[in-house]
Amino acid sequence: MSEARHDRARLRPPAAARIGDRLEDVGSPALLVDLDSFEHNLKQMQGLADAGGVALRPHAKAHKSVAIARRQIAAGAGGICCQKLSEAYPFAAAGITDIHISNEFVGADKLAMAVELARHVDLSICVDDVRQVAAIASAAEAGAVRITVLPEVDVGHGRCGVNSPDALIRLVDTIGAASSLRFGGLQAYHGGAQHIPVWVQRRQAAQRAAEQVSGYVRHLGARGIACPVVTGGGTGTAEFDCQSGIYTEVQPGTYLFLDGHYGAGEWLGQFRPRHSLFLSATVMSTARPGVVVCDVGLKSVAVDSGLPRLWSRDSGGWLRYVAANDEHGVLEVLNADSQELLGNKLLLVPGHCDPTANLHSQFVCFREGHVVGLWEVDARGLSR
Amino acid sequence: MSEARHDRARLRPPAAARIGDRLEDVGSPALLVDLDSFEHNLKQMQGLADAGGVALRPHAKAHKSVAIARRQIAAGAGGICCQKLSEAYPFAAAGITDIHISNEFVGADKLAMAVELARHVDLSICVDDVRQVAAIASAAEAGAVRITVLPEVDVGHGRCGVNSPDALIRLVDTIGAASSLRFGGLQAYHGGAQHIPVWVQRRQAAQRAAEQVSGYVRHLGARGIACPVVTGGGTGTAEFDCQSGIYTEVQPGTYLFLDGHYGAGEWLGQFRPRHSLFLSATVMSTARPGVVVCDVGLKSVAVDSGLPRLWSRDSGGWLRYVAANDEHGVLEVLNADSQELLGNKLLLVPGHCDPTANLHSQFVCFREGHVVGLWEVDARGLSR
Repeated sequence: MSEARHDRARLRPPAAARIGDRLEDVGSPALLVDLDSFEHNLKQMQGLADAGGVALRPHAKAHKSVAIARRQIAAGAGGICCQKLSEAYPFAAAGITDIHISNEFVGADKLAMAVELARHVDLSICVDDVRQVAAIASAAEAGAVRITVLPEVDVGHGRCGVNSPDALIRLVDTIGAASSLRFGGLQAYHGGAQHIPVWVQRRQAAQRAAEQVSGYVRHLGARGIACPVVTGGGTGTAEFDCQSGIYTEVQPGTYLFLDGHYGAGEWLGQFRPRHSLFLSATVMSTARPGVVVCDVGLKSVAVDSGLPRLWSRDSGGWLRYVAANDEHGVLEVLNADSQELLGNKLLLVPGHCDPTANLHSQFVCFREGHVVGLWEVDARGLSR
Repeated sequence: MSEARHDRARLRPPAAARIGDRLEDVGSPALLVDLDSFEHNLKQMQGLADAGGVALRPHAKAHKSVAIARRQIAAGAGGICCQKLSEAYPFAAAGITDIHISNEFVGADKLAMAVELARHVDLSICVDDVRQVAAIASAAEAGAVRITVLPEVDVGHGRCGVNSPDALIRLVDTIGAASSLRFGGLQAYHGGAQHIPVWVQRRQAAQRAAEQVSGYVRHLGARGIACPVVTGGGTGTAEFDCQSGIYTEVQPGTYLFLDGHYGAGEWLGQFRPRHSLFLSATVMSTARPGVVVCDVGLKSVAVDSGLPRLWSRDSGGWLRYVAANDEHGVLEVLNADSQELLGNKLLLVPGHCDPTANLHSQFVCFREGHVVGLWEVDARGLSR
């Protein structure tokens, strides 16, 4: 290979940011974390869990980052949740040994992952069908591992989870009959309740979910079955779940970041999260009057829960993100000369943090206007 | 480090597929390519370009894969398009030396990338503002490289690109005055026209775009400025652009895959694409009557242009994907016992191929029901 070809083969895009960079010099698009707000959120949620005597098991699906999971554990979390088996691998590899998969799975490829993970970490998983239990029991027995199993009960979300005490009893009995499995308690997550914007309505929905799971726990208790763990809850309901007297563990994820969707809801209780997750954007075209075009589109920000919202007012005018194309974001310009905005750096609040983080390889962490940390999105794209 | 800890640190999720695997044994979610249909699309578009005497410069933003770009070039393409500078790096590193960035950019980080790329490949870029031209001219001069510049003209899309002959002339004159730049022709892409579902209306929109760019070319000609390249067009209009007599080059990307959005449009002309891109999914919960839940959600399939559509009828009933959560897809069940579908493998057609490919690290290629290739998504997430 000639020297020129050898040089070419080593071409890699430069880093978006380096430690010590000024915030305004960070490349775009990049995923930014305001560490002061991040730490505020981290401490406040841990404080609520501690005050309620409830374990905090943060959901790593929101960040997919070992560096963040370690900070959550250092702050008091006992372990983490993952939503997929493959997602758990980088956390297990990094030495995080208490991992709950808050989801069902079926298939030989998934069973092999569960058995491999269970060799290395305390693994718990969810079921809502006796056929799942039978498959896991066989795989765990063949693999000489023991796996903790939590039946999922539907407490109002209407997605996964059993819907009757009888179905739950069948699951618990099937788990109890398998020497390779251990009954761990109940998974009871009401996704819909998380996203109710009105605070008192959200509290009511959380109370109804807690009453439902309480009914299941009493039903098990009447048959002499103790329920060591009741786990569930998310960012929207965690403060209520911590005070419910029924949940022993909460699973919030977005609480660290407060995305645009959650940020648009009411926060009238003890949990007062701050926006800590942003996207850097650059205005790269001002050719069309009245609008500007930035370099953050669908491939850099998830729009399933709303378009990103402008955070910075540095642009000298009022801008509104109105359309996302694959690689472009179109912003409506009000009260400004759009021509003057060419090259302006913007901060955007993503509508939905989980799928947005999954689009990036790195969190660029800043404090007082400078880059102070670079955290990998280790489980990016691990969706099996 | 103990042996157990050492083993743990090496944990990696197993591959979703290996060469020779049966299609039904591929893990899920995975991104699948039906090679027979892929090759049909590849050849048909190249044939249309050849017949029109037009260069085919496929857009690599659709697939972000060196393996696919190489097949496009082997089939007759002269070079590729990228939409972002960082996206071009893996293609340049792999020895693809004719790369057009069909987009504007601003900022020191971007200029540094353009200069670095121009040292290794024939780089062309787009502008729609004289300030962009000035910045690129300075950076190219300082870096001792020469960069080909194509002003973008707005031919109806209303996003980037100049809107008047005077603005175009100013750009061309500014480019001409810079010894480090070369005027390369015009970028004229009408994104909106691509997505018009009715074929005759799409043809009309393509004709109007061609007339607009023709006006700009005549205006330049009247000033003695030859326009060596007129580039633009996408999957929806490429067959018209190839016959327009004005476009010298077309830039389709989705033509290889035909996603659900494009697939819902009319194809009444010579280009008759076939669906070649799919997602594998597994039904992992049937607890709720009337619906089943699969393992393909927002993190595995982009939903900005519609939800994925069921392709396989192997499920024994009629299923409709009705809601995407982060890691779950909810499917409505008609004419089947939902309970019997637990563990069923499904094939889904993604609504929008570009951002879907960007969620995956690999294309799993199959032919006659078996895995025959694994292609990396090399430029995944490279959005700067």
